[in-house]
Amino acid sequence: MSDRQNSTEVPAADDFVLGLDVGGTKLAAGVVSADGRVQAFTVTPTGAGDGPEQVIARLCRLARDTVSSAGLRLADLTAVGICCCGPLDSRSGVVHDPPNLLGWGDVPLADLVAAELGVRVWVENDATAATVGEWRFGAGRGIRDLLYFTVSTGVGSGAVIDGRVFRGGRGNGGELGHTLMVADGRLCGCGARGCLEAYASGTAIAARARERIDDGGHSTLAALTDINAADVARAARAGDALAHAVWRETTDLFAAALAGFINVFEPQLIVLGGGVARTGDQFLVPVRERARVLAMRPAGEIVEVRQAQLAEKAGVVGAAAAAFDRVTTGE
Amino acid sequence: MSDRQNSTEVPAADDFVLGLDVGGTKLAAGVVSADGRVQAFTVTPTGAGDGPEQVIARLCRLARDTVSSAGLRLADLTAVGICCCGPLDSRSGVVHDPPNLLGWGDVPLADLVAAELGVRVWVENDATAATVGEWRFGAGRGIRDLLYFTVSTGVGSGAVIDGRVFRGGRGNGGELGHTLMVADGRLCGCGARGCLEAYASGTAIAARARERIDDGGHSTLAALTDINAADVARAARAGDALAHAVWRETTDLFAAALAGFINVFEPQLIVLGGGVARTGDQFLVPVRERARVLAMRPAGEIVEVRQAQLAEKAGVVGAAAAAFDRVTTGE
Repeated sequence: MSDRQNSTEVPAADDFVLGLDVGGTKLAAGVVSADGRVQAFTVTPTGAGDGPEQVIARLCRLARDTVSSAGLRLADLTAVGICCCGPLDSRSGVVHDPPNLLGWGDVPLADLVAAELGVRVWVENDATAATVGEWRFGAGRGIRDLLYFTVSTGVGSGAVIDGRVFRGGRGNGGELGHTLMVADGRLCGCGARGCLEAYASGTAIAARARERIDDGGHSTLAALTDINAADVARAARAGDALAHAVWRETTDLFAAALAGFINVFEPQLIVLGGGVARTGDQFLVPVRERARVLAMRPAGEIVEVRQAQLAEKAGVVGAAAAAFDRVTTGE
Repeated sequence: MSDRQNSTEVPAADDFVLGLDVGGTKLAAGVVSADGRVQAFTVTPTGAGDGPEQVIARLCRLARDTVSSAGLRLADLTAVGICCCGPLDSRSGVVHDPPNLLGWGDVPLADLVAAELGVRVWVENDATAATVGEWRFGAGRGIRDLLYFTVSTGVGSGAVIDGRVFRGGRGNGGELGHTLMVADGRLCGCGARGCLEAYASGTAIAARARERIDDGGHSTLAALTDINAADVARAARAGDALAHAVWRETTDLFAAALAGFINVFEPQLIVLGGGVARTGDQFLVPVRERARVLAMRPAGEIVEVRQAQLAEKAGVVGAAAAAFDRVTTGE
């Protein structure tokens, strides 16, 4: 609290938000200005096994150090935005026993960090934060209706509808990754079967390739002890038929899912981020072409599909963007 | 225009909207008061084959007669709300060659009716209108986040998000019936394959029963020349195994679709209307139970699934409700 006690002057003319990214493996922090520029970006391991108390203490130290590296004091901040893996209640700022932070139970993350730093804190689902980041500072600037997907370990998503961030009834909505794509299909991490995530996530792409090999399929991937989605993408580019079939099945299914979402949301833009989407045109082109054909008219004609622009700082920028949005809209 | 010329007094203290329902087979009209009560409900065949000019003339005659039967003049109306089968642009009020009004092409429905009646006209997609009707005057009163489905010839849908009617980027969004449920599945009327509508609509339920019989399945339905969804429901209740399997497959698939939508929207309430839902608990109970199990937590725990309350006047009440909503919100 010493930072706050020493600060008696009027806040700086520029608005700054501290963005914090709480992930299962690492914590990140960065000071983000109102135009989306990041200062003093720092990262440290989460050490999630130490439990919430120690991790939050670590997060607050990282926060103080980062603000200080940016030449600012805590009192100079308009707000702190935290993005965290869900489920969580973005209104209360309580995280509800997230699978990526095993054994945490219910943690009032916003209140604990606010008490420690003496600054207003907003907590946001990580996919929603990334959505707001791309909308305010990335590929979706100036767009009124957009969908965002991060296709990586899982399939996260978020939506901006009519110029407003969509959070669902309790702040965990926009979970488009858990739309059923294959009746009685692959078991998903959410407990249901056949979700989009159970096919199109990086984890699922790798698992599907492995299963084809275990079923006797021939592939250059068979030599690898541990297959990941990047390996499948690389093998597909190199002409490996099994990898190509897995990739094609993935882009077909993802495109069909997007077509459905286009019919529901009629977005102007769909932004694709995360490791799988970072393969670039190999993912983007077939997904875009097929989704536009499958979607109804006129929705399929107006929608654009673009790659995300924010890269490794997406979490921090997104968390800050979501906090800026809360401050601006008063929601 | 004579009604308008004769009217010089201040509008009545009560707000009245004329609701018009333009369907492929019939036109309906009713004067709806701000509390949702319907006066002077009238219906006439559309005669869609006569083309837009004659149908719109017929609609306007019906409008005048209905207002007059209610003891009002056109000038007493706050607005006219029209619900029509899509696709249409609800902002411009232009209907774009709807499949149910074959050969119409693009028709500026709102402008034509407004010019004829001299009253402000709002046009709404029929599923969106029904959604607003249930929200303002039916099963969804007082709810901030709800989804509505009409399960009949097709599967129409609409959404209220955070207390606002969701229309998608161009007014045809909320088409949840065209979400992919079965990859490379049954051909849907929209041109894509495997949509929810291609399995769960009344038409699809009947067709799937017929196909099972044609494939050699035994059923009491085999004796009928023309099977409809009500026949399948009745046979299933009477213990017919084939009909029961078709019904079970339908409720399973519909529940899986709802689970996905619950994950996306986190609604407090889902309202089910249309002929298939009017079978009551036979449809509602298995759909509700399975959807809540399949959906993620906490979304699956908070959602309720209820039957629609507005019956044969749903179109007229919905059209009026949507117009009241436009007047209130200024959107």
